[in-house]
Amino acid sequence: MTEDSSRPLDALNQAKGKRVILSLKSGEEITGVLNAFDLHLNLWLEDAERRNNSKTTKLGTIVIRGDNILFISPE
Amino acid sequence: MTEDSSRPLDALNQAKGKRVILSLKSGEEITGVLNAFDLHLNLWLEDAERRNNSKTTKLGTIVIRGDNILFISPE
Amino acid sequence: MTEDSSRPLDALNQAKGKRVILSLKSGEEITGVLNAFDLHLNLWLEDAERRNNSKTTKLGTIVIRGDNILFISPE
Amino acid sequence: MTEDSSRPLDALNQAKGKRVILSLKSGEEITGVLNAFDLHLNLWLEDAERRNNSKTTKLGTIVIRGDNILFISPE
Amino acid sequence: MTEDSSRPLDALNQAKGKRVILSLKSGEEITGVLNAFDLHLNLWLEDAERRNNSKTTKLGTIVIRGDNILFISPE
Amino acid sequence: MTEDSSRPLDALNQAKGKRVILSLKSGEEITGVLNAFDLHLNLWLEDAERRNNSKTTKLGTIVIRGDNILFISPE
Amino acid sequence: MTEDSSRPLDALNQAKGKRVILSLKSGEEITGVLNAFDLHLNLWLEDAERRNNSKTTKLGTIVIRGDNILFISPE
Repeated sequence: MTEDSSRPLDALNQAKGKRVILSLKSGEEITGVLNAFDLHLNLWLEDAERRNNSKTTKLGTIVIRGDNILFISPE
Repeated sequence: MTEDSSRPLDALNQAKGKRVILSLKSGEEITGVLNAFDLHLNLWLEDAERRNNSKTTKLGTIVIRGDNILFISPE
Repeated sequence: MTEDSSRPLDALNQAKGKRVILSLKSGEEITGVLNAFDLHLNLWLEDAERRNNSKTTKLGTIVIRGDNILFISPE
Repeated sequence: MTEDSSRPLDALNQAKGKRVILSLKSGEEITGVLNAFDLHLNLWLEDAERRNNSKTTKLGTIVIRGDNILFISPE
Repeated sequence: MTEDSSRPLDALNQAKGKRVILSLKSGEEITGVLNAFDLHLNLWLEDAERRNNSKTTKLGTIVIRGDNILFISPE
Repeated sequence: MTEDSSRPLDALNQAKGKRVILSLKSGEEITGVLNAFDLHLNLWLEDAERRNNSKTTKLGTIVIRGDNILFISPE
Repeated sequence: MTEDSSRPLDALNQAKGKRVILSLKSGEEITGVLNAFDLHLNLWLEDAERRNNSKTTKLGTIVIRGDNILFISPE
């Protein structure tokens, strides 16, 4: 857990192919299966859904711009 | 789905020539046929339309600045 | 339409010398004849006009800073 | 007007030593004689004045940070 | 304490494997065990919890984008 | 006044050791004797004072982060 | 005071090991003993305290992200 070489994005590598929850700066949540990411935290999600208050909207495949993200959490 | 070399923008490569939906940070939606994109998520769309509440406005060809975008979804 | 080498700014190259409409992040619109642009979407417009609600103001020559722009559309 | 090599900042080169009007993101206007500029649109103005609603304030020499600017227009 | 070579992120190196408190720009607090960080202050936390007013939500593993952070404090 | 090689920050070089007025994006004003500056417009001021509405607060030595600044003016 | 080679961050070098006051963009104040800083004005403070209106909260060791800072002042 304290190796010097581990980096925050390594946690995303382990989450590839699995469902993640995005908490956005706007307060909304988006979930989806993590297909790819880059250094800006731009993400490619499959089977994505947007949760806004009590409403859920199916989004399918999305590419989300990383600067909207507060945090990313594997389910 | 878990190849190391896939990147978020690869999803946009697959969407070229097809209609995409942009969800903007402002809450608006813009749709159009994706003609080109770059690393900043600047997009060149054809036959674009803007959806604002229940109003639709035809925009034709547009170049949208990437920093306005929340996510991009192929229809 | 799906050549790999096309880029969003190529659409602006085609619009040089023609009138374009800028939709700004603030909700305002500016139109003008596109004289030059750069990678930040800084634009040099001639015969520019600003449209704010129902009011139109003649601006003449302007250099607009790209980070104000939502999208650019040839008329 | 459509030479490939013209750039937005060339318009500012032509305005050096002349009075320009700055429209700021905040809605204010500043005018002054353009003495120098750089790639960020940082500007050195002489004999500057700030116009805020119907009030005009003399500012003399100022260096304005480019990220406050909406557009720059030669008078 | 006044060696020239110490850097702010050295404090985070010392906190690896320990619980830290994040104070966010939004006013919220997130705590978790610091697993990794990078130069942007992107953080990988384990056993994370979000504290919003008097409500605590368990988050588990998260990767938080550094630009949301006001400060980081070891407990 | 129209030499090509002059740059906005040259105006600040001339103001070193003299009192300057900072107009901040927040609407506040800070004055002080300019001791040093860098390309981001980070400034080192001596004998600084903050003016907020009709209240003046003595600040002494300060380092101000450039991204807060609207403009800098020699008194 | 007018040597060309002095830079704003030199003022922070002189403040190392001493108590500084941070004025944040949010209007809050944080004080602490300056242990380290970098070019982004990320700071490592010891014995930090947060002052919010009339309330003081002890924070201990903190790493503060530079983009929250209005100015830094040695006490």
